[in-house]
Amino acid sequence: MSRVYNFSAGPSMLPEEVLKKAQEEMVEYPGAGMSVMEMSHRSKAFDDIIKEAEALVRELMNIPDNYKVMFLQGGGSTQFAMVPLNLGTGKKAADYIITGQWAKKAAQEAEKFIKVNKVASSADKTFSYIPKPGREAFSLKDEVDYCYICFNNTIYGTRYTELPKTDAPLVADISSNAMSEVINVEDFALLFAGAQKNLGPAGVVMVIAREDMLGEPLEGTPTMLTYKTHADAGSLYNTPPTYSIYIFKLVLEWIKSKGGIAELQKINEKKAKLLYDYLDSSKLFKGTVVPEDRSLMNVPFVTGNDELDAKFVKEAAAAGLVNLKGHRTVGGMRASIYNAMPIEGVQALVDFMKKFEAENA
Amino acid sequence: MSRVYNFSAGPSMLPEEVLKKAQEEMVEYPGAGMSVMEMSHRSKAFDDIIKEAEALVRELMNIPDNYKVMFLQGGGSTQFAMVPLNLGTGKKAADYIITGQWAKKAAQEAEKFIKVNKVASSADKTFSYIPKPGREAFSLKDEVDYCYICFNNTIYGTRYTELPKTDAPLVADISSNAMSEVINVEDFALLFAGAQKNLGPAGVVMVIAREDMLGEPLEGTPTMLTYKTHADAGSLYNTPPTYSIYIFKLVLEWIKSKGGIAELQKINEKKAKLLYDYLDSSKLFKGTVVPEDRSLMNVPFVTGNDELDAKFVKEAAAAGLVNLKGHRTVGGMRASIYNAMPIEGVQALVDFMKKFEAENA
Repeated sequence: MSRVYNFSAGPSMLPEEVLKKAQEEMVEYPGAGMSVMEMSHRSKAFDDIIKEAEALVRELMNIPDNYKVMFLQGGGSTQFAMVPLNLGTGKKAADYIITGQWAKKAAQEAEKFIKVNKVASSADKTFSYIPKPGREAFSLKDEVDYCYICFNNTIYGTRYTELPKTDAPLVADISSNAMSEVINVEDFALLFAGAQKNLGPAGVVMVIAREDMLGEPLEGTPTMLTYKTHADAGSLYNTPPTYSIYIFKLVLEWIKSKGGIAELQKINEKKAKLLYDYLDSSKLFKGTVVPEDRSLMNVPFVTGNDELDAKFVKEAAAAGLVNLKGHRTVGGMRASIYNAMPIEGVQALVDFMKKFEAENA
Repeated sequence: MSRVYNFSAGPSMLPEEVLKKAQEEMVEYPGAGMSVMEMSHRSKAFDDIIKEAEALVRELMNIPDNYKVMFLQGGGSTQFAMVPLNLGTGKKAADYIITGQWAKKAAQEAEKFIKVNKVASSADKTFSYIPKPGREAFSLKDEVDYCYICFNNTIYGTRYTELPKTDAPLVADISSNAMSEVINVEDFALLFAGAQKNLGPAGVVMVIAREDMLGEPLEGTPTMLTYKTHADAGSLYNTPPTYSIYIFKLVLEWIKSKGGIAELQKINEKKAKLLYDYLDSSKLFKGTVVPEDRSLMNVPFVTGNDELDAKFVKEAAAAGLVNLKGHRTVGGMRASIYNAMPIEGVQALVDFMKKFEAENA
């Protein structure tokens, strides 16, 4: 068996170059006489790794000096609590725009700690679009501590192409589109991303926060869920997930070697166009998202027939195109085509879909 | 440069066999066509890994069926909050025995949420002993939700050889002695261990909890800090640190291949005896812990002269014996000799110490 094209929504495909480099350095990291996994997080060798990772994040995302970059644990799900615990004042509410399961979960978790305004939702059409000013009616109040969005919706395959207009600090979950397209960090007060989609292995979360967001958390916030704890300690308050940060750094070096985020975005747009163009022309398959809000990263599609969907997923896997089954809450198919998916993988998928369509028309 | 003997307190040495196996399987896990890092946490291949990890933990530690095993994130520091948030009722207090920095930090964190009785402390003698009934006076109240100990003290090099007598549920941080000696799980209501000492890479914490400890947490406990969330979902509520769990599983297989924990304990006792016997006979070096409470895992020692300590650490490193510097809060030296440190490493250290003593007498 050789390496497959892995369309998993996360954890997901990593660049083969990254895996080969990690393989080379597994038993002995150059000059260290040990694996990165064995390094003290207080050692010079690891300090170089985490500092270089931060420097690369700053360079690639063009992050201003008044933002902190942190490498944390607990996934996006822990951020769902950390955002209200740290950005909530207890005096105002927070606005949440509900564009799918992850935004919904984030809002539910926030309700444990603060008042939440669900200012808009696309639940009425199975989250197949992004609610936005001028199309659907919703208002964003200025009298809130922050406004929260999920920038790209992994499950439903939508993404913001225009940010909501609000005077409140804007917070975004960018787990499934981080570093896949150019984002202007200054548009946001806080960004976070679980690494396991575009950035590396599961077990590390990148948080980018404007310094004025790092004040006192709500009373009773655990020390480990306080941003200030980690920001002040350069993500070394306690032992960080050292090996995951190392792999993340290798991915960052790979992104840089490809010309940076803007160059990857061009490739990602080509990859997405290839797949969406075929979906729009197919008589068997159709995309589930309105064209203007389509994600570049997660492409859900259906045949409209559950049995045929299952047959497709099975035959595709046999052909080396794996993890195409849609999320368990949605059904159908989904192709996640993150940075590490080469255009050849998307072409192979489209070719296979054409063949399947011809055989099952 | 070849592999060194790494005496780091954590992250720390891993068995070379484990690293080589991980290296072999890095780019393509057998039969999967991808790296373990790239596997969906909902895939059959990863499900086999996490289930096998749990089965091995249960087998090696002889865990009764009424205990849950969880693989969590956030390190021991997050457990410092989870224990009181989940085991505290808000009606009673909890007893903490302060045997060093980690027990102290755990008690401080607990005080954010519940009433804490610091029932005993060995701070009076720089934590160089374990306070226990019949030697120092302390009482353990039965009217508490739980009693908390740090079983082995990584920084100060002490360990319990006899458990405190209490009717309350006993909770222990076993981060630095997990699977290095036989522990009777039924003596405890909850055990936790950060993996980065005896069990694997940083980024995963093993929690073993009796089912009656998994009830309702205190109000306002984040979902991700609720044990029940993870116990009910088999550690798959959200994306777990998949690769760290895989390495953990390889370490568990290695422990089993060595004959299990009882066999490793025999080797660990030999390793510790080798080092302590030399310390007790040396005119230059001396151990800092009372003999009856000495850790099998972490061995602090001093010359009594800071300059000579620094010289020793430097020359030892040049000889391939690294990370012997004591914790920044203590000074002196510390040799951490976890499961993965072979007896040859301890012998090499003793030989080097003898040579250093001869040269610097």
